[in-house]
Amino acid sequence: MRIDVLSLFPDMFTNVFGSSILKHAQESGAVDYQVVDFRDYADNKHRKVDDYPYGGGAGMVLRAQPFFDAVEDLQQGSKSKPRVVMLCPQGERYTQQKAEEFAMEDHIILLCGHYEGYDERVRQFLVTDEISIGDFVLTGGELGAMVIADSVTRLLPGVLGNDQSAITDSFSTGLLEHAHYTRPADFRGMKVPDVLLSGHHKNIDEWRHRESLRRTWERRPDLLKDKDLTEQEQKWLKEFVRNE
Amino acid sequence: MRIDVLSLFPDMFTNVFGSSILKHAQESGAVDYQVVDFRDYADNKHRKVDDYPYGGGAGMVLRAQPFFDAVEDLQQGSKSKPRVVMLCPQGERYTQQKAEEFAMEDHIILLCGHYEGYDERVRQFLVTDEISIGDFVLTGGELGAMVIADSVTRLLPGVLGNDQSAITDSFSTGLLEHAHYTRPADFRGMKVPDVLLSGHHKNIDEWRHRESLRRTWERRPDLLKDKDLTEQEQKWLKEFVRNE
Repeated sequence: MRIDVLSLFPDMFTNVFGSSILKHAQESGAVDYQVVDFRDYADNKHRKVDDYPYGGGAGMVLRAQPFFDAVEDLQQGSKSKPRVVMLCPQGERYTQQKAEEFAMEDHIILLCGHYEGYDERVRQFLVTDEISIGDFVLTGGELGAMVIADSVTRLLPGVLGNDQSAITDSFSTGLLEHAHYTRPADFRGMKVPDVLLSGHHKNIDEWRHRESLRRTWERRPDLLKDKDLTEQEQKWLKEFVRNE
Repeated sequence: MRIDVLSLFPDMFTNVFGSSILKHAQESGAVDYQVVDFRDYADNKHRKVDDYPYGGGAGMVLRAQPFFDAVEDLQQGSKSKPRVVMLCPQGERYTQQKAEEFAMEDHIILLCGHYEGYDERVRQFLVTDEISIGDFVLTGGELGAMVIADSVTRLLPGVLGNDQSAITDSFSTGLLEHAHYTRPADFRGMKVPDVLLSGHHKNIDEWRHRESLRRTWERRPDLLKDKDLTEQEQKWLKEFVRNE
């Protein structure tokens, strides 16, 4: 898969794409990242990519031309038409479902604005998706682009080892993860639950399942609404409610 | 304000904290970032920070000891007790309100796990907040920590110029931003709306207000539920519904 990024701050990506799983994914050939300064596509000698807004007002607006020219250049040689994804506060909320959708593509291009608005024609005629990673104000689209690149790369075949895949899968059971503990069994008087030290696997599995359900019930009851609960799970839920 | 980060991949932050507004905020003294490899705090000569989970199962668990020792070290000399924020998928959803809350603190410490669970005692006895930036699976807490650092830094006094502040403020009117356009008025046949070229400021303001409302209605109707709408806004909304 190919993931291109258009940004005014390409250096921000160097160590993020160059660390840990994203680095290995690139080295193994599972993904090819390309970060491009879209100033390189400005049609003026000052490499100016913004201008004053029509109609007046504070702030500058990112011009349409560098985005159109850059995307057209980047999509040359692409097998299929790439997804062109604009990071913006008004976009669709990013979710794991969207990551799975993007991971099926051969090529995505991520557009990062930077504390300025995009010329509306970019939104209307160039992009295929507008994405926001959440209801908070960030300096630019760069962190959102990193979030997309990371979450999508993890889903590509061969990128995660079995251990790590297992962890991801546990997220997709629809329940939050249960508590984890490691050595020592007593850390400054804070103790590990006895059941985990018992060696009794059936009890351990049951405890973990129950704790997953409890944590989900306490923190994300919305996740339980559409879930088919087993008889045992329903019994536990009644217990939680009773002991509240 | 002081923002400390505990991570196994401190290099990931170098160019993010070293670019654009975050760089200027640090140079001006508004914020002091410190990124620490918490392997430095491991109490063993192999700098090992993880171990097998009690009770068995796939994956490793981040040990409690390096986090406790690192946080205790970092909070020495702090005027007030720092907020200790764990990035994790099960945490409270991050929002602009949370950014505003964090921006009132003197000192926050961000804990980044990395595709492994934290020993539960870190969660129970060390952290003050558990935060998730969204419903997607990431390799580690690093991107979440960057999101918090960026969104909080922008809110510190003196960090944003007036132009940029104005843009942020427009987000907090409770409506999404209207469309922006800049030169040329005709780009490859795609045109700027006439009203923005008219020079008639009252009409321009009205068009922008209406477009903000329309975009909010189309994309984020949830934002309109608790909003006191003016008579004009209610009239526009009826128009949108009628023309749908």
